[in-house]
Amino acid sequence: MGKKYVYKFSEGNRDMRELLGGKGANLAEMTNAGMPVPQGFTVTTEACTQYYTDGRKINAEIEAEIMKNLGELEALMGKKFGDPENPLLVSVRSGARASMPGMMDTILNLGLNDVAVEGFAKKTGNPRFAYDSYRRFIQMFSDVVMELSKKRFEEIIDELKEKKGVKQDVELDAEDMKQLVVLFKDFYKKEKGEDFPQDPKVQLMEAVKAVFRSWDNPRANVYRRMNEIPYDWGTAVNVQSMVFGNSGDNSGTGVAFTRNPATGEKALFGEYLINAQGEDVVAGVRTPSPISKLQEDMPHVYEQFVEIATKLENHYKDMQDMEFTIEDGKLYMLQTRNGKRTAAAALKIAVDLVDEGMIDEKEAVLRVEPKQLDSLLHPQFDAAALKKAEVIGKGLAASPGAACGKVVFTAEEAKEWHEKGEKVILVRLETSPEDIEGMQVAQGILTVRGGMTSHAAVVARGMGTCCVSGCGEIVVDYAKKCFTLAGKTYNEGDWISIDGSTGNIYGEAVATVPADPSSGPFGRFMAWADKYRQLKVYTNADNPRDAKQGYEFGAQGIGLCRTEHMFFEGDRIKAVREMIVSDNVDDRKKALAKIMPYQQGDFEGLYEEMKGQPVVIRFLDPPLHEFLPTKEEDIKEIADEMGLTVEKMKNVIDSLHEFNPMMGHRGCRLAVSYPEIAEMQTTAVINAAINVQKKHPDWTMVPEIMIPLVGEVKELKFVKDVVVQTADAIIAASGIDMKYEVGTMIEIPRAALTADEIAKEAQFFSFGTNDLTQMTFGFSRDDAGKFLSYYYDQKIYESDPFAHLDQTGVGKLVEMAAKLGKATRPEIHLGICGEHGGDPTSVEFCHKVGLNYVSCSPFRVPIARLAAAQAAIKNPR
Amino acid sequence: MGKKYVYKFSEGNRDMRELLGGKGANLAEMTNAGMPVPQGFTVTTEACTQYYTDGRKINAEIEAEIMKNLGELEALMGKKFGDPENPLLVSVRSGARASMPGMMDTILNLGLNDVAVEGFAKKTGNPRFAYDSYRRFIQMFSDVVMELSKKRFEEIIDELKEKKGVKQDVELDAEDMKQLVVLFKDFYKKEKGEDFPQDPKVQLMEAVKAVFRSWDNPRANVYRRMNEIPYDWGTAVNVQSMVFGNSGDNSGTGVAFTRNPATGEKALFGEYLINAQGEDVVAGVRTPSPISKLQEDMPHVYEQFVEIATKLENHYKDMQDMEFTIEDGKLYMLQTRNGKRTAAAALKIAVDLVDEGMIDEKEAVLRVEPKQLDSLLHPQFDAAALKKAEVIGKGLAASPGAACGKVVFTAEEAKEWHEKGEKVILVRLETSPEDIEGMQVAQGILTVRGGMTSHAAVVARGMGTCCVSGCGEIVVDYAKKCFTLAGKTYNEGDWISIDGSTGNIYGEAVATVPADPSSGPFGRFMAWADKYRQLKVYTNADNPRDAKQGYEFGAQGIGLCRTEHMFFEGDRIKAVREMIVSDNVDDRKKALAKIMPYQQGDFEGLYEEMKGQPVVIRFLDPPLHEFLPTKEEDIKEIADEMGLTVEKMKNVIDSLHEFNPMMGHRGCRLAVSYPEIAEMQTTAVINAAINVQKKHPDWTMVPEIMIPLVGEVKELKFVKDVVVQTADAIIAASGIDMKYEVGTMIEIPRAALTADEIAKEAQFFSFGTNDLTQMTFGFSRDDAGKFLSYYYDQKIYESDPFAHLDQTGVGKLVEMAAKLGKATRPEIHLGICGEHGGDPTSVEFCHKVGLNYVSCSPFRVPIARLAAAQAAIKNPR
Repeated sequence: MGKKYVYKFSEGNRDMRELLGGKGANLAEMTNAGMPVPQGFTVTTEACTQYYTDGRKINAEIEAEIMKNLGELEALMGKKFGDPENPLLVSVRSGARASMPGMMDTILNLGLNDVAVEGFAKKTGNPRFAYDSYRRFIQMFSDVVMELSKKRFEEIIDELKEKKGVKQDVELDAEDMKQLVVLFKDFYKKEKGEDFPQDPKVQLMEAVKAVFRSWDNPRANVYRRMNEIPYDWGTAVNVQSMVFGNSGDNSGTGVAFTRNPATGEKALFGEYLINAQGEDVVAGVRTPSPISKLQEDMPHVYEQFVEIATKLENHYKDMQDMEFTIEDGKLYMLQTRNGKRTAAAALKIAVDLVDEGMIDEKEAVLRVEPKQLDSLLHPQFDAAALKKAEVIGKGLAASPGAACGKVVFTAEEAKEWHEKGEKVILVRLETSPEDIEGMQVAQGILTVRGGMTSHAAVVARGMGTCCVSGCGEIVVDYAKKCFTLAGKTYNEGDWISIDGSTGNIYGEAVATVPADPSSGPFGRFMAWADKYRQLKVYTNADNPRDAKQGYEFGAQGIGLCRTEHMFFEGDRIKAVREMIVSDNVDDRKKALAKIMPYQQGDFEGLYEEMKGQPVVIRFLDPPLHEFLPTKEEDIKEIADEMGLTVEKMKNVIDSLHEFNPMMGHRGCRLAVSYPEIAEMQTTAVINAAINVQKKHPDWTMVPEIMIPLVGEVKELKFVKDVVVQTADAIIAASGIDMKYEVGTMIEIPRAALTADEIAKEAQFFSFGTNDLTQMTFGFSRDDAGKFLSYYYDQKIYESDPFAHLDQTGVGKLVEMAAKLGKATRPEIHLGICGEHGGDPTSVEFCHKVGLNYVSCSPFRVPIARLAAAQAAIKNPR
Repeated sequence: MGKKYVYKFSEGNRDMRELLGGKGANLAEMTNAGMPVPQGFTVTTEACTQYYTDGRKINAEIEAEIMKNLGELEALMGKKFGDPENPLLVSVRSGARASMPGMMDTILNLGLNDVAVEGFAKKTGNPRFAYDSYRRFIQMFSDVVMELSKKRFEEIIDELKEKKGVKQDVELDAEDMKQLVVLFKDFYKKEKGEDFPQDPKVQLMEAVKAVFRSWDNPRANVYRRMNEIPYDWGTAVNVQSMVFGNSGDNSGTGVAFTRNPATGEKALFGEYLINAQGEDVVAGVRTPSPISKLQEDMPHVYEQFVEIATKLENHYKDMQDMEFTIEDGKLYMLQTRNGKRTAAAALKIAVDLVDEGMIDEKEAVLRVEPKQLDSLLHPQFDAAALKKAEVIGKGLAASPGAACGKVVFTAEEAKEWHEKGEKVILVRLETSPEDIEGMQVAQGILTVRGGMTSHAAVVARGMGTCCVSGCGEIVVDYAKKCFTLAGKTYNEGDWISIDGSTGNIYGEAVATVPADPSSGPFGRFMAWADKYRQLKVYTNADNPRDAKQGYEFGAQGIGLCRTEHMFFEGDRIKAVREMIVSDNVDDRKKALAKIMPYQQGDFEGLYEEMKGQPVVIRFLDPPLHEFLPTKEEDIKEIADEMGLTVEKMKNVIDSLHEFNPMMGHRGCRLAVSYPEIAEMQTTAVINAAINVQKKHPDWTMVPEIMIPLVGEVKELKFVKDVVVQTADAIIAASGIDMKYEVGTMIEIPRAALTADEIAKEAQFFSFGTNDLTQMTFGFSRDDAGKFLSYYYDQKIYESDPFAHLDQTGVGKLVEMAAKLGKATRPEIHLGICGEHGGDPTSVEFCHKVGLNYVSCSPFRVPIARLAAAQAAIKNPR
């Protein structure tokens, strides 16, 4: 006996979602709850997987099982496939484990052929309806199964209407519909070289195959990648006997939610159309009526529907999204599922359900998708304004939120315009550290090049600024201060709007509404999340403003302060360059002495904002050439400024050139070569901590210093010795008793592999999963964009390993390092500070492997808090 | 009770080498064998380690133990430290576990002070000798212990000689020597601000500290790195009562080997100087007499020495290198050790010792340093060219081999010229440890002074570098950067050639021919190695010439054929560029079709040379931009040639630019993007194999295709599917039944971490430890040079991880992958094809983790064979 590949609705239940898909499982559940569901059966997701295993073929075993179930459905309905008197008609719908709205195609009225249509006409007493159903079926089948162009069918209808001198479809009569069937079949034969299939069983098998096939269509693949749905899940197929909402004015169809999906308000919410098929509601051709009006139109049906809706919500203990059809005054349920909702609605519903005693706090915490919180924290477009706006292009949704402003092309202009009170969108080929100040004042950032982890994307996310990156269709002309997109030119000063949550670009000003997370049940809900999570959530912050933002969003510390970001501002960069061109220790120390007070001030600012919570400061990381100019004119200017010849300046730049800067002279390698840098940074950290400690005697300042890019315990020890000597001397002189910690990033595979050794010197580990991912995969974040698209196309990788931690490979190193580290030093604390620290699936992984905290950009802190809570509830330690 | 930090010679033995160092252990062994050894004691290597642990201090416990042993030595010798009648004088010498010739400093005559010198004068009846010894001691102590310049002491002597109007040191009398002692002590006081230490115990403790200190001097560190001697071994210190080879004409000193260290011939070989101290022989200031002459000079001493030498060789079962001193006609043994020897000598001695029944085959195999074989494999002069070449001078044949290069006069210049790609001969009056790095890069070394055991000779033999020493006719002018020989002047940059096997010097470039290692005992010896090794040895070969060379050196297959090397030759590069600029599959296929026949021909050539042995062909690996021009003029030329605009060409080049090419679009990523490349390469491999199979029906051709840079099983599967489809079709069409294998490089950390998955698709693994090292350490081989020197200085890394496999980190990945791979596929075969495949310590590691083969460049094949045999003998599986 093989597997069971087909289940009657009466054989399944809601727990069989993996096998039957969401739709199939819920149809079964409703059937067994005695609700009015048109009967049918579900072909399982395993049949889909088998279809692909068999080289895109449905094997004989599965086909036989489908036919057996078809026979049983015929018996149940008292109708027969292709029967000239009373034919069975069915719909064929896809239904995957997770809802994939709009991604999979549906076929209605299957079972009609030249003979059955006559039987159907007789049975319904409505030949026009019968032939309309038949021509609709031919159209759908040709499009979905046979991939013929929909357009030509529409043209044929239009030609007929013109010939008859009518305007509306409803003006076509039964004969016209018959005529259309003939014309459609002719077209089909011409295109496919064979007759339209008359055997309903052949129609059925082809339709099932088409659903399976659609699992692998490009839209499905893109959607899956966006929504992290594994390819190997497969889709189920639901074969259901037809009911007709379009069989007259006593019929209709609609969709409804048990609560308002936009606000969460507890009231039936939805709409319906009289005399229409389900697709008509979705397609929006006619304007439907609000569900409340059904009470007037068909009071009994309405009453029954409200009863069913309430029962379903109580049964599923969640807001339901339902489809129904009324055939000749009789109500049929076609679908129920947990309804999609906005973040605001999700929070309100979760909290209300707890208050109503339906679910407990833990369940409520699980009910909100962490990523959804994003939309509560960023400005959004005004819904009405957005409907009218035209999308002129699309890039990557690099940093969420909505922004609207005037186009500028340089960071300097952004600052100037901002100072004049203008809102700007900074449009760049790509951004670099010099653009930071311009990025800070812009409403949004739009780049032509760069992926989700490009400089623009990473920095924008850190700032909470909206960013659309990598819109390759844009052609920028910096010289003329304009760009062209979709055939139109946009000049400096023109209004555009961008949506960092979708990647959409609009060529006009679209009104936005500000974020206000503190309103509504946000605080109450997040308190529950905090109650159940075990991971601490820190923020990545390089300046007091970010630190403040993170603190307000609930960060319990700073997990990563990138000190190099402080090196670029204002006059500091001059001193940094002086240091770099120094060819001896003394000159280097002199230059570093100029930078020290700035760093100390920055650190004091961070400490003040974090009010005594942990602050992990990472020492200088990037290769020094990043601080030097690259353009001829800049080189000259800076050489002049520094009193050097252009030649000397160029020599320094040349000597710093690297073939693979990512694997070059950076991280702790800088401190090994130039210990005076570590000395200066230690001085700044410890001085700052002492000053803040003196000001706030009630805080317990324990500065944490993090050495980056360590691959070998001896290099950590070398740098740590410099830190300890410097720090101990300052603390001793201060007369204050202060502890401090020295730890390291684990971001080089060798560090993870030798973490037992490294833990001898490191008091904490922070997993730098950005670099660790690069090294473990052996591809550079900046270059991978060029070939990763091929990898997605071939389904070699299903998601971007820089967005979601690769648990198989990189995760193995993280887990190994965590274990080895704890074995050497049981009290070691472990965190993560890569981009993954704010990604819910990665946060769950961090919980599972026993990390102590995750650290992410300020705007992702609430997301991480919720994700951590969900991880803890799902995986009790 | 603490550790025992000091051992009398009578307390030790040869097995205590780790604790007592080589010299100390052998002095103890000879003492216990009843040989005439001046008595003394050894301060252990653990005391050295303790010295560093204690922050470069000798702690009270160790000092007390030294003093206790000093007291016992005084009692034994009947002399007392600083005694005004009969003072005890000692030498203080370093002695590490491994021989480090010339690296550690020696102090003689310690114990002399203003009082003892008088007692010594009385006792010897030779005041001149006593004061000469005292001034020598002050000089040595000041130099070695106090780091005062040697030069000033020599100047003081020269000034005195000038004042007295004499030329030779021997013309100075006792009063002069007394005068020198006064002048030396004055200089010492002026420089150090304190009197020359008069307390012999203080002298001793300072000397011991200086030896410990010298373990960490830069020369020692360079030598250790070259010779893979761990820093933490430390050195022992030998304190030995003095005997004087310079106390008259009935005294002398010498060094000798029990067999000829250049040829292995069984005959006493060495040299001695009458009335001299040991250092004089080594320094090569005077030219010594051959040891055979001692038979005439002192027949009884000679007889006794021969007897001891024979006894020592029989005892150690190996050729001995001995130092001796004759004081007043009495022979003293100062050292014995297994002698350094040339590769030819090593082979001959090993084979002879087996024939003499002294050792067995396995022991013989262990007796030859694998790296030494190098010198057997290096070029000799072309006989015809040599006939025409004129010998312009002759020195000692100090280290065999032929060398030809441009004259340089300093180690620094040698390095500089070498870095510019020049071949150099380093010409020096004599060499010293500071010259080591220059000697390493030189083709050959030519010295004016020094014998067969001079620094230059010993070190050159160790390195396998050609050396001619002691050519006294050469007059060097360092200032003018020239030397004259036979009336002709040779300037820096002029070509010369030297023959380290004959001592001949040629004033021109003389052509060289490859070595013929198959002559002599090489074949017999290597057969033993082959008998005991378990690892197979393959060669890396990209063309038939290399394949042939590898085959002749005993390679059992090709472990790595880099197909991209074939892409550069002749017209092929044009087709390759055509492929790269193609923007569609068809054009790409057309260009690839042009390359195919070349590749096929290359593969046929390889198969023919390897005579049916395994040949692993790696598919295209480098990023495509490596095949494109970079210079403006080349771009123009190639654009013209290809009928493209310069702009289009530049666009292609720009589009291929990568920030980190090492981590970019290369390896199997190319085949994922452009499967047609893999198709073409598969076609070439399979066609070639079929053709060769048809020509040689007795061979069993099983082509092996290796997919590079795999990090995920799905990407391997994708490329493998392309290979399999292509290959199966060709094989089916050929009518031949041929098997083939598809495997992968393991060179990305993620591949090692997920090797269980990857082994599902890979039939073999080949560890690409070059890239694996880069990714695991997170540094690029091309850039690491800039900062690794700091790492060596700080002892963070002791050897280049690209030369010796990092067993701690990278090795952990290799071991993990080997285990995971075997777990999935027990019959999987495992090899290594990185640079490490020819490095003996790495080969041993490969044996230990159970690989099946190593693959290395042709010239390293014999080294790998021997290393594999030694690994197997030392680590039975």
